[in-house]
Amino acid sequence: MIYITRRETFNAAHRLFKPEWDDDRNLEVFGKCSNPQWHGHNYVLYVTVKGEVNPDTGFLVNLKDLSLVIQKYILEKVDHKNINIEVDFMAGKYASSENLAIAIWEQLEEPVRQIGAALHCVKLLETEKNSVEYYGKNN
Amino acid sequence: MIYITRRETFNAAHRLFKPEWDDDRNLEVFGKCSNPQWHGHNYVLYVTVKGEVNPDTGFLVNLKDLSLVIQKYILEKVDHKNINIEVDFMAGKYASSENLAIAIWEQLEEPVRQIGAALHCVKLLETEKNSVEYYGKNN
Amino acid sequence: MIYITRRETFNAAHRLFKPEWDDDRNLEVFGKCSNPQWHGHNYVLYVTVKGEVNPDTGFLVNLKDLSLVIQKYILEKVDHKNINIEVDFMAGKYASSENLAIAIWEQLEEPVRQIGAALHCVKLLETEKNSVEYYGKNN
Amino acid sequence: MIYITRRETFNAAHRLFKPEWDDDRNLEVFGKCSNPQWHGHNYVLYVTVKGEVNPDTGFLVNLKDLSLVIQKYILEKVDHKNINIEVDFMAGKYASSENLAIAIWEQLEEPVRQIGAALHCVKLLETEKNSVEYYGKNN
Amino acid sequence: MIYITRRETFNAAHRLFKPEWDDDRNLEVFGKCSNPQWHGHNYVLYVTVKGEVNPDTGFLVNLKDLSLVIQKYILEKVDHKNINIEVDFMAGKYASSENLAIAIWEQLEEPVRQIGAALHCVKLLETEKNSVEYYGKNN
Amino acid sequence: MIYITRRETFNAAHRLFKPEWDDDRNLEVFGKCSNPQWHGHNYVLYVTVKGEVNPDTGFLVNLKDLSLVIQKYILEKVDHKNINIEVDFMAGKYASSENLAIAIWEQLEEPVRQIGAALHCVKLLETEKNSVEYYGKNN
Repeated sequence: MIYITRRETFNAAHRLFKPEWDDDRNLEVFGKCSNPQWHGHNYVLYVTVKGEVNPDTGFLVNLKDLSLVIQKYILEKVDHKNINIEVDFMAGKYASSENLAIAIWEQLEEPVRQIGAALHCVKLLETEKNSVEYYGKNN
Repeated sequence: MIYITRRETFNAAHRLFKPEWDDDRNLEVFGKCSNPQWHGHNYVLYVTVKGEVNPDTGFLVNLKDLSLVIQKYILEKVDHKNINIEVDFMAGKYASSENLAIAIWEQLEEPVRQIGAALHCVKLLETEKNSVEYYGKNN
Repeated sequence: MIYITRRETFNAAHRLFKPEWDDDRNLEVFGKCSNPQWHGHNYVLYVTVKGEVNPDTGFLVNLKDLSLVIQKYILEKVDHKNINIEVDFMAGKYASSENLAIAIWEQLEEPVRQIGAALHCVKLLETEKNSVEYYGKNN
Repeated sequence: MIYITRRETFNAAHRLFKPEWDDDRNLEVFGKCSNPQWHGHNYVLYVTVKGEVNPDTGFLVNLKDLSLVIQKYILEKVDHKNINIEVDFMAGKYASSENLAIAIWEQLEEPVRQIGAALHCVKLLETEKNSVEYYGKNN
Repeated sequence: MIYITRRETFNAAHRLFKPEWDDDRNLEVFGKCSNPQWHGHNYVLYVTVKGEVNPDTGFLVNLKDLSLVIQKYILEKVDHKNINIEVDFMAGKYASSENLAIAIWEQLEEPVRQIGAALHCVKLLETEKNSVEYYGKNN
Repeated sequence: MIYITRRETFNAAHRLFKPEWDDDRNLEVFGKCSNPQWHGHNYVLYVTVKGEVNPDTGFLVNLKDLSLVIQKYILEKVDHKNINIEVDFMAGKYASSENLAIAIWEQLEEPVRQIGAALHCVKLLETEKNSVEYYGKNN
């Protein structure tokens, strides 16, 4: 078993808040991250896939294919977007890093399988200090 | 003459657009950076000041003082904010990195002088790939 | 299960040596790290905690709480300190990265539980080239 | 159990291609990485070993020993070399990152054991965006 | 005057040697960098341009235009290439970082002018430890 | 004129204090950096030299020579040392980054000239957030 990781970045706006709370209550729980006028991040995304090396190429998967999958299923939907408003796979979810990492996993699991690998980990850095990792619902 | 640089970060939302243009024209010129629903960045700010070493302390300035100046005049105004809407010193300006760096310079020039140094450079990284430097209007 | 990592830094002095050995013997085993006049590092600390996402907030834990725990139980005790002499939880232990990572784990395990997560990993970088990871005594 | 990681770098040339294919077919599958005139990388290598802390030193292993093992068995053979042509332990293998990481594991497994630790992971970054991890054939 | 910097990367093979010397003499002067079978690097290129902010856009230049200029005049010619053999603008020159930085300057000076800015600096990192800067022949 | 920069690192202990003040007064001015039991840093040192490219080699200077100069005149004296007590060229000076950068300049100016270049800049990072640059006493 070998593990391959691809690093990508995207820039997006978001806001942490519960719609059923008013701004004061949101500020109390989510702090400045609840700013109603949004803020944003240069998110860094690490996608790790696993499987056997193909003896015919020396590859697990062609990185070009993995890159295209991440481009199509994630980057085109989140880059330069508002996570709360414009990302279909985040509809109805709080725009936390935790939820975003889990949703990215769910988007990528099947397309990664179709290029011949298994999704192992989605790691998402919101800032230099804070990151989230998700390994699927059975892990 | 010695030069001291302090690195700080802030997270903010912004949008590149001309209000007198419609969304299509803005998209044409500013690309995805014109998204009406905003996007954002982890901005990295380097503030460089210069002057003589104080023989009494071995310091140009106390870095705690420089840090407090940047905190008060910049970070409290831009961190977790919307650059286009909420930052007083950016009112009426396009929220480009160029304009933001120049405006940060104008905010810091006098307070830096008051702690005993001269502002030398404001460097602002919008992403890992793009940065701006400003050395004042006579340079 | 989701994993959250917080990155913090601290600056400290230390020395590798066995008190029952003389300086020559210490130099032989520990090299320049045994310098009796100390040396120091910008330590980088990654604390990873795990658990379920709270459906009420979209968080595993509030990162502000995790940050406060690390601040109180670790950073206030080690930052700008001498690891060998001044850190209560390192008393009687060699000031190696291995022992420091294990001791940090022991300090954090219970406070992390009290904010609603389980400690997963303590990773400590002594330099750009050398790091240590500890996952608890059953792993 | 504690885990220690050592980071090293080396610069090498390589090329991805199947000798039984012509240049056009290689270009189709391997893209610009198949360039017959070679290209190269600043590879970054992370070697992670595991074991118990030696109560006599506070170390898992002396990092100087681990560094010497990596120097002797890997860096002297790959640094400033052509991976396809000049590296004995890559003879007859495609010069992919996957195969290189596995071969580095095989080179290091026994020497790491002889300094008193168990090899846990070989991680190899080919570029800032692409990396490979290998944990041995039973993992 | 404002300064904008764009960061790009490329992977290439090269070799330091004088064709009129034999391999032993080359090894003596250029060390392992003279390896006849090549080695390579992940080069990091920083291109800094300067000029006035366009009041109509808030930009010095559209970064998309700067990126396209670097892509067309540099990256397409050097990425995944052999600097000694395949790069037209390095023909007849030693493939040192110094010469490469100067040659990149000469390639970019005119195209940068055509997008409305002046080339200020070409900075080239060969490794994490070694870099070169060139500011044009009058500086 | 071309500029070459070499990056090196060293680990050292230090303390900011005036010997004629008591610990309380030192704490007031220098904060936790005045800790009498020391603290330390992974210092990062960038040495930039300038000159003309030697047409015979394509080099400004052989980087091996520059590296040896930095090794001999700086790293052997400061690495794993106590800056306040053990570094001859810092005797009688406050161990601030400003003074350390200036002293490193004075150590390197003549040896750099002897390998055929002119010293241009000494840049010293004490932490990720704080750095100092010195360009000589006439700049």
